[in-house]
Amino acid sequence: MSKSGIQKVVLAYSGGLDTSAIVPWLVDELGCEVVAFVADVGQGEHELDGIEEKARASGASGCYVYDLREEFVTDYIYPTVQAGSVYEGRYLLGTSMARPLIAMKQVELAREVGADAVAHGCTGKGNDQVRFEATFAALAPDLKVIAPWRTWGMRSREDLLAYLAERGIETTASKEKIYSRDANLWHISHEGGLIESTTNPPPADAWTLTADPSAAPDVGMEVALSFDRGTPTAINGERVGPLELIERLNAIGSVHGVGRVDLVENRTVGMKSRGLYETPGGTILMEAYASLEELVYDRDAMRLRQDLGLKFGDLVYTGKWFTQTREAIQAGVASLAARVTGEVTVKLFKGHATAITRSSPNSLYSEDFATFGEDEVYHQGDAEGFIRLFTLPERIAALSKQHASGGKA
Amino acid sequence: MSKSGIQKVVLAYSGGLDTSAIVPWLVDELGCEVVAFVADVGQGEHELDGIEEKARASGASGCYVYDLREEFVTDYIYPTVQAGSVYEGRYLLGTSMARPLIAMKQVELAREVGADAVAHGCTGKGNDQVRFEATFAALAPDLKVIAPWRTWGMRSREDLLAYLAERGIETTASKEKIYSRDANLWHISHEGGLIESTTNPPPADAWTLTADPSAAPDVGMEVALSFDRGTPTAINGERVGPLELIERLNAIGSVHGVGRVDLVENRTVGMKSRGLYETPGGTILMEAYASLEELVYDRDAMRLRQDLGLKFGDLVYTGKWFTQTREAIQAGVASLAARVTGEVTVKLFKGHATAITRSSPNSLYSEDFATFGEDEVYHQGDAEGFIRLFTLPERIAALSKQHASGGKA
Amino acid sequence: MSKSGIQKVVLAYSGGLDTSAIVPWLVDELGCEVVAFVADVGQGEHELDGIEEKARASGASGCYVYDLREEFVTDYIYPTVQAGSVYEGRYLLGTSMARPLIAMKQVELAREVGADAVAHGCTGKGNDQVRFEATFAALAPDLKVIAPWRTWGMRSREDLLAYLAERGIETTASKEKIYSRDANLWHISHEGGLIESTTNPPPADAWTLTADPSAAPDVGMEVALSFDRGTPTAINGERVGPLELIERLNAIGSVHGVGRVDLVENRTVGMKSRGLYETPGGTILMEAYASLEELVYDRDAMRLRQDLGLKFGDLVYTGKWFTQTREAIQAGVASLAARVTGEVTVKLFKGHATAITRSSPNSLYSEDFATFGEDEVYHQGDAEGFIRLFTLPERIAALSKQHASGGKA
Amino acid sequence: MSKSGIQKVVLAYSGGLDTSAIVPWLVDELGCEVVAFVADVGQGEHELDGIEEKARASGASGCYVYDLREEFVTDYIYPTVQAGSVYEGRYLLGTSMARPLIAMKQVELAREVGADAVAHGCTGKGNDQVRFEATFAALAPDLKVIAPWRTWGMRSREDLLAYLAERGIETTASKEKIYSRDANLWHISHEGGLIESTTNPPPADAWTLTADPSAAPDVGMEVALSFDRGTPTAINGERVGPLELIERLNAIGSVHGVGRVDLVENRTVGMKSRGLYETPGGTILMEAYASLEELVYDRDAMRLRQDLGLKFGDLVYTGKWFTQTREAIQAGVASLAARVTGEVTVKLFKGHATAITRSSPNSLYSEDFATFGEDEVYHQGDAEGFIRLFTLPERIAALSKQHASGGKA
Repeated sequence: MSKSGIQKVVLAYSGGLDTSAIVPWLVDELGCEVVAFVADVGQGEHELDGIEEKARASGASGCYVYDLREEFVTDYIYPTVQAGSVYEGRYLLGTSMARPLIAMKQVELAREVGADAVAHGCTGKGNDQVRFEATFAALAPDLKVIAPWRTWGMRSREDLLAYLAERGIETTASKEKIYSRDANLWHISHEGGLIESTTNPPPADAWTLTADPSAAPDVGMEVALSFDRGTPTAINGERVGPLELIERLNAIGSVHGVGRVDLVENRTVGMKSRGLYETPGGTILMEAYASLEELVYDRDAMRLRQDLGLKFGDLVYTGKWFTQTREAIQAGVASLAARVTGEVTVKLFKGHATAITRSSPNSLYSEDFATFGEDEVYHQGDAEGFIRLFTLPERIAALSKQHASGGKA
Repeated sequence: MSKSGIQKVVLAYSGGLDTSAIVPWLVDELGCEVVAFVADVGQGEHELDGIEEKARASGASGCYVYDLREEFVTDYIYPTVQAGSVYEGRYLLGTSMARPLIAMKQVELAREVGADAVAHGCTGKGNDQVRFEATFAALAPDLKVIAPWRTWGMRSREDLLAYLAERGIETTASKEKIYSRDANLWHISHEGGLIESTTNPPPADAWTLTADPSAAPDVGMEVALSFDRGTPTAINGERVGPLELIERLNAIGSVHGVGRVDLVENRTVGMKSRGLYETPGGTILMEAYASLEELVYDRDAMRLRQDLGLKFGDLVYTGKWFTQTREAIQAGVASLAARVTGEVTVKLFKGHATAITRSSPNSLYSEDFATFGEDEVYHQGDAEGFIRLFTLPERIAALSKQHASGGKA
Repeated sequence: MSKSGIQKVVLAYSGGLDTSAIVPWLVDELGCEVVAFVADVGQGEHELDGIEEKARASGASGCYVYDLREEFVTDYIYPTVQAGSVYEGRYLLGTSMARPLIAMKQVELAREVGADAVAHGCTGKGNDQVRFEATFAALAPDLKVIAPWRTWGMRSREDLLAYLAERGIETTASKEKIYSRDANLWHISHEGGLIESTTNPPPADAWTLTADPSAAPDVGMEVALSFDRGTPTAINGERVGPLELIERLNAIGSVHGVGRVDLVENRTVGMKSRGLYETPGGTILMEAYASLEELVYDRDAMRLRQDLGLKFGDLVYTGKWFTQTREAIQAGVASLAARVTGEVTVKLFKGHATAITRSSPNSLYSEDFATFGEDEVYHQGDAEGFIRLFTLPERIAALSKQHASGGKA
Repeated sequence: MSKSGIQKVVLAYSGGLDTSAIVPWLVDELGCEVVAFVADVGQGEHELDGIEEKARASGASGCYVYDLREEFVTDYIYPTVQAGSVYEGRYLLGTSMARPLIAMKQVELAREVGADAVAHGCTGKGNDQVRFEATFAALAPDLKVIAPWRTWGMRSREDLLAYLAERGIETTASKEKIYSRDANLWHISHEGGLIESTTNPPPADAWTLTADPSAAPDVGMEVALSFDRGTPTAINGERVGPLELIERLNAIGSVHGVGRVDLVENRTVGMKSRGLYETPGGTILMEAYASLEELVYDRDAMRLRQDLGLKFGDLVYTGKWFTQTREAIQAGVASLAARVTGEVTVKLFKGHATAITRSSPNSLYSEDFATFGEDEVYHQGDAEGFIRLFTLPERIAALSKQHASGGKA
């Protein structure tokens, strides 16, 4: 029996300074075995190089690396694109979408290795702790949750480096790290440093993924995207799988400086924070998708999608992925998305992606429209009757008032 | 008594070909006096030059030009900016906002001159007929409404030109007019011609107001906007009135190619149409306003504003300005807007306007925030309790399932 | 070729005075063949007795009676119950739900018999014309729609009786008919007569289905309903099919005077009307369903259901059944409903149905709850952290204000 | 300096067992002065008898009783009635509305007496702790908050009685108390005991305020309520102030067994609880108000009110009264409510209140309606045009599909 009562913990491990210190801390403080869990959600190969050795060197009994990239795209990104969810009007939810997937797989591994606890390296002021623990609550309420940043005494990179040095654990981490970042296939986020003052413009050195729009090519580029019942299927007519699709869009989007966002947002834990985000491929994809929706949704459907998109975005942001409500909204969105088939051309230029052509077999603005005779679909005379009844409540109200006052209003 | 029973009609007159033909048609067909009403909502001085003479030459008994520009900004544009309303995610409602104001003043004039009817030159397939007539229904249900395009036999510019030629009424209108446009202080819209095929990119010759982003200056420009309780008050620290504010933002926005939009939208009358819009100053203003909202609204308030903004936008688009519902939403929005005080810097570059700094005395991300001691506002330890209760429903559901199945899920 | 160009019309035929007159009118005026279509949606056997003969006697070339009762329950009533939709807070949508089903089957028959038109007997001021024609638009936009009440000159029962008498067609219809009614398996509605003044209490003679609550048994009655994933399956433990379920609930509900409603509602066509409704079984069923939802939905899910229910109800009321939006909302609702399994006891007494017990294997208020140790699920100490972060925006706002004013607020 | 650092605390004091024990506990544990604050929100005169002496006997240095009844009605109840807010479809928010008022006044007293802390006697599993502390956070973030039930070791009535006995403080509290209750002018709530099993019907002995419906008079009673711009002004034509209005409605409602509710609800802290509520006068008032709304709101306004009512109810329930969002929604609701003028008759009978007549000068179903000539307001022929455009999206979609498939759908 360990001193904490915990025998084995699975830690969501990134290989960064924080989780590198958490491994020995868990071993020391809890007296338990630590299994490192690495989720590959497209954070980059350099992040994964030698990560198993690093984990073991820190004291982990084992290290499991799961390639979750394709699942991330098909089961998390695509539903969110279909919902059109953009948190508080700007944030494309890159980190938010990845966390429930990572935590869900972490639970799976915990079951496989017979762990009795799970741990993460998120701080106590952020959103990610909520997203991890909301997933744990929904999928493994019996597992203990350990969040060292909320309980240990360390408060800074210096503290962590000192802690590792004491134990003779090597690290390549530097003392100074200006920005706090999270990267995956969909995006990279930046917080901290000069970003923290809202009166500072985004610092040029914060951006890492996309070209500065002013340095992007002077000639724009067009890219055609094809969709089949809500799912993107081809780039410029060439069929590509989900992973390749996002990667290729990222590549061209980055060149043109597409997808930079600067936002002061409301965190789940009640405070505001300012973040910079780069989502090059995602920005292209969402622009294309939204433009195709314009062709195939009638007004009521568009309103429903807007409304569901807001709600879905809030659920994703706040970590409420494994919930009744997220499932239900996704079912509604999927029903709408079944009509989103067609092709869109997006122009990339100096930081922006703009749809310039759209076509769909389900278009309500069909190319065949002109061939509908006037008598078949729309008579201008219908408008009079339509308007009279559409505005009838206002007319009745006004007439009532006139009658009441004995004449004109 | 006239042959139609109508004695005097006030026509919303623009001086264009359509209303130039409607004046004599009303005189001929209805046998009534026609009073021309011209609303100056900032469509441009050249549109108003000699318009009174033109109206009389067409057969109008009089022509009244009302300068509605400032009222347009303060009573229609500002509330819509405060609501953050953007129809179907893209259209900044330029034409939609102007119509109820124009129609309301047209009713006022009709009362003053003792008219028994009002007329407009909108076609039977569009939104504007609804907006005019919804206002007439709400404010003057006793007045007859005449919409010649829905009833006369003419179908083309050629028909109108022939009609005028027959009557010896001169016109400078050309036989060919590719695009149908509507301009005011806030925007200009373009429809028709090559725009009508959604597989055509926006034609370069359609745009009239803004520079092509690729031809815009290679060096961007920053502009600072100040707001006081929801109302913009200054540009770069210099106090300006509402009219000048919009005009100056239009001027600089146009230079940088800001505010172009290409949209397939759902019209009120049930069909889709494609429109191009240029709203240079408006785009800057809404970006600035939204960025200030980020500082001062908490999450619930942001959600409410998003929700009210969608509803408000639909009401404005569909002509439902003079309604119980628009008034109520505006009251709610005004309550929120009372907090929107502060300053925002917006960067204009190659077609886009992006907020880069924000400050507000009402900021919930206050510059003083750092000075709140950890113990005063936020304890990291609070997060554990927060998360446990925030996710309690998921935990209970999972535990119930585990208990039911006699063990782990 | 007929004089109207129409060869064969399928008429939604009820056997009442209106459609009895419409048959010969269609023959006379359009010179076409008329096929009568009778939808049995549970309006009562007496309504169907001899209806085929009656149709032929009126001049129909054929009469088809379709039993749609079970489909009505499973495909229209159950989804609406699951959505919890009650129009404007009171109306249980009895007529609204039946119309799209009837019109859809009418279209099927029109295809089978090769008709080129469809007709209905709805008046031009009501909702039902919209519901029929919305279905025709969605499923058979090529068929002509004939709505005699909007076009013929007749205005009263006397006119119709005279019209039939002229043609020697017998009818048992009386000259006087105080109330206009619509009945089906789910409800009966009443309009007209004294009901039309909102200052009259509901006239006692209007009600036809339910006992007057004051005359209902002095001893109430309990009924247990079982549900399986959103579908009612048993009464008092006895499994019953959908048709029998509604019929039995109607029987017991009527005895206890359950389900009377008196409402001034907003019609689709823009005017208000007052209606009385009796929905005895439906009221019991919806009370039971809602009570079970209380056990199984968490707060977010409850909010989503409330929101979707409002929207779904509006779509059903306005005839927008065969639309993208109704399908999508139903998909979302079905996802939620999958959890609604369990049993509810409802007490019927003097006009009302009230759930008194509830149980569910999916309950979030599980009977096992007490057995969750305090440490397993809920620590009272968690509440402090929860509340501190839940209210953090208010605290920050207040502290900012205090700091700004140099002290306490 | 006290041992806790706290000098003076204002306690929300009820005179019940819990707060009677909290007074000496605060004195003992914190070593501070305790000021008792009693809010009279209509909980009943017997609850207030001798309360000042009792507070002092428990060790309070002073006791302040504030009569908040009228403010409760005008500033909390009436806005909630106007919003039509009913939490989760059933709960009329009696306790929820009172808490922010009580806590706000408690803060006022704390400022007056120079206290540095506030305390309440709510348990750690309930909603009320959130409501109190949310108010403290918004109005007095600098004051310490003390919630003994979350921190002390006592867990039962026995513990409290023993604690008081040790200190020689007399109490009339009994060892056994089956139900936990909260009463005010608007309602009384009941929890605990047999109520806690959802398979138990509401126990007869739980109800304290209203007659059992089965024992209520066999002859119903009618009551007429008058409203002026959203505010109730008279009963049966007699003008009454807000306090008297609620009291008189309570009296007659109780006799007829009106306003009993049995609900399993989602608490703010994430768990479900079952509660019984009695709101006799409130039920009558809300029925009357809703019935008047039916006359004066058009469809859009009704939808907005329904939507705002849901949101407002959630804010009230969760203690979010002193927030940006509650203020904004209330402003929107107030705009709507300005039209709610008129008279409603409600019939009370055997447990229920049902509006039977309605009239309003702002009615959109005006008694003058019949006098509007057909030509003035509604032409049946308008319906055709209306329906064709109302259903145009469905028609276009269907035609597109037919064209695509080369013929009929």
